[in-house]
Amino acid sequence: MTELTRRSLLAGTAAAAALPLAGIVPTDAAAPLSGKQAPGFYRYKVGTMEVTAVTDGLTIGPLSDTYVANASKDAVNAALEAGFMARDRATQPYTPVVVNTGGKLVVIDTGLGPAMLQQSKGTAGQFQTNLAAAGIDRMAVDAVVISHFHGDHINGLIGPDGGAAYPNAEVMVPAAEYKFWMDDGNMSRAADAAKPAFQNARRVFGVVGSKVTQYDPGKDVAPGITSVSSPGHTVGHCSYIVAAGSDRVLVQVDITAGMAQLFVRNPEWQFGFDMDKQLAVQTRRKLYDMAVAEKMLVQGFHFPFPGIANIEKDGNGYRLVPIFWNPTI
Amino acid sequence: MTELTRRSLLAGTAAAAALPLAGIVPTDAAAPLSGKQAPGFYRYKVGTMEVTAVTDGLTIGPLSDTYVANASKDAVNAALEAGFMARDRATQPYTPVVVNTGGKLVVIDTGLGPAMLQQSKGTAGQFQTNLAAAGIDRMAVDAVVISHFHGDHINGLIGPDGGAAYPNAEVMVPAAEYKFWMDDGNMSRAADAAKPAFQNARRVFGVVGSKVTQYDPGKDVAPGITSVSSPGHTVGHCSYIVAAGSDRVLVQVDITAGMAQLFVRNPEWQFGFDMDKQLAVQTRRKLYDMAVAEKMLVQGFHFPFPGIANIEKDGNGYRLVPIFWNPTI
Repeated sequence: MTELTRRSLLAGTAAAAALPLAGIVPTDAAAPLSGKQAPGFYRYKVGTMEVTAVTDGLTIGPLSDTYVANASKDAVNAALEAGFMARDRATQPYTPVVVNTGGKLVVIDTGLGPAMLQQSKGTAGQFQTNLAAAGIDRMAVDAVVISHFHGDHINGLIGPDGGAAYPNAEVMVPAAEYKFWMDDGNMSRAADAAKPAFQNARRVFGVVGSKVTQYDPGKDVAPGITSVSSPGHTVGHCSYIVAAGSDRVLVQVDITAGMAQLFVRNPEWQFGFDMDKQLAVQTRRKLYDMAVAEKMLVQGFHFPFPGIANIEKDGNGYRLVPIFWNPTI
Repeated sequence: MTELTRRSLLAGTAAAAALPLAGIVPTDAAAPLSGKQAPGFYRYKVGTMEVTAVTDGLTIGPLSDTYVANASKDAVNAALEAGFMARDRATQPYTPVVVNTGGKLVVIDTGLGPAMLQQSKGTAGQFQTNLAAAGIDRMAVDAVVISHFHGDHINGLIGPDGGAAYPNAEVMVPAAEYKFWMDDGNMSRAADAAKPAFQNARRVFGVVGSKVTQYDPGKDVAPGITSVSSPGHTVGHCSYIVAAGSDRVLVQVDITAGMAQLFVRNPEWQFGFDMDKQLAVQTRRKLYDMAVAEKMLVQGFHFPFPGIANIEKDGNGYRLVPIFWNPTI
C-alpha cells in the first residue's frame, strides 16, 4: 500500500492508497452521521387530483405460527427469503393516503396514532408528523374516510393531545363496520382475544363523537373517490377507486393485510388476521383480477412505502411492480 | 341520490350521497394543491456507514432507433410496456450517492449540475438542492469519487456559482478515464458527435483544477469503498463495493446505463451509448452474476429512485426487487 512506484505516482493512486491512514490526522473530523430518514411521503397525480401517500412507519415482530393459516411456517419462510425478507419476522408497514380532489382534502385511514410514536421509539405512529412534513395541515382536512375499524386504521383519528385529530373533518365510516363493532351483543359474544378491538372502537369514536357519518360501499365518499365493497378482512371492509378520466388507482387498503411478499404472490394463502379467510381470498382475487385487466395502479396500506404499484399476473399469483418514482410532480 | 330512505338515514349514507353538491357551498374552500414532491433522498445503513441516495431528477426524451443497438424498436417497446413504462420514451433518472463512512463524507458522482435545473424546468439537476434537503453540506464533503467522465456524472462538480461545488474535497477520478478523455489525440480522432464529451471534460476539470487525483480500479477510494473495474460503458468506467463486514452494496453506476426495464431484464441487449457494447454486456453479466451469487444489494445510478434493489436471476436475464423502504434508519 505504501510503495510509491512511478506508475502509482503518475496515476495519482498513491493518494488513494494512503487514504486508510487519513483517520490518524486529528483535524480530519468526519461529518456526523445523520441518523434521519427522508420525510415519509410521496406525491402523485390522478388526473387533476393530487394523492399523497404518507407513511405511518412500520413495525417488525415475530412471525406467528398462524400468520398464514393454511401454509406451513417452512413454506412461509421460503417465500419470505424468495422476497428478500427476513425469516421468522412479520414486517408490517402502514401507509394512509391523502387525496386532494381540488375541492376536498380527504384522508383515507389514519394510522396507529401518535401515542404509538413513543411506544415504538419512533418507528411507527408517524402519520401526523409526516403529514405536517408533507405540508398538509390537519385542520384543513375536509373528510376522513375510514376503511374498517382495526386500530392501525382508526387510532390516528385521535391527535397528540388526546382530542380529535381532524376537528374540522367529517369522519366517514362504512355502515357495516360501525354496526358490527359498536354492537354490544357482538362484543359480548366475541372471543376474549377479540374483545379489545371492540373496546378500542368505542374509545376512538367516543373521542370523535358526533362528527361520524356512515356510508355504504358503491357510494362516492368524495368527488372522484368511490368506495368498493371488499369484505373478508373484516365484515364491512371497504376499498376505493380514485378516478379522473381514464386515470385510476385502486386504493386497496387491506385486501392484502399481511406482507405483500406472501399474499400477493400466493393469493390463496389465508392471512391469520382476516376475519373471514375464504371470503378474503375471493375478494383479493376479484379485485386484483380487475386491477390487472384494467391496468389500474394499486395503492396498498401494507405494501412497502410508497405503496403504489402496478400489478401483473405471475403464474397462479400476482406480482407488484413498483411505480417509477417521479422526483417532481 | 336525494331520496332519503329510512335505511339511508339510519346508515347515515344520506350525508355521503349529498357530498357531490358540497362544492356549491361557497365557504367550502379547498386546500390548495401542493405540486411539490418529497425531498428526493433515501438513507440506509451499510454496517455502521450511512448511505444517502440523492436524486438528481429525471429526463424524458424520445426513444431513438439505436437506443438498443441489437433489438428492434418493436421488441424494445414491447419490453417497455411489459415493464409498465411509456412506449417510445427514454425515461432516465439520475441518482448519485453519498457515503458517510464515519471518517469520511464521500460523494460518488455528481449529476447533471445545477445549470440543468433551469434548462429542464426543475426536473433534472436537482442533486445539490436535494443534498441540502438531506442535511448534507457541500463544504463538508471530503472526497468526490467520479466513476466515468460522462456529463451526468461530472457536470455537478461545478456549483451554482460556476466554481467548484465541493471546494474542500479531493476529487478522485479513474486514471484510465482521465487519460482517455483528456488526450488531445483521442479528441481529434473522435467522431464529431463524440467531440463535445471531450470538450466538456476539459471544461469541468478546468474549473476543478489541481484538486484531482487519479485511482486505478481495485483500490479503496475511501475506507470501506473499493473501486471495481467495469469497462464497456466507457473505457475506464468504475463501479464500487461499499462494505462493512458481511453488509455489502454494489454501487454499479452505469453497468446498466439505459433503462433497467430493458437491460436488466435483457442483459444481452446493447445500449446505444455504451462505447464498447460487447464488453459492456460481458461486464453486466459478470457483476450481476456476482451480486446474485453473493446476495449483494445493487445501487444503480439510472435505476428508478431510490435506485437500491435486490437482484435475482429470471430466465436468461435478471430482475430487480426494490428494497423494502425503511421509514426510519
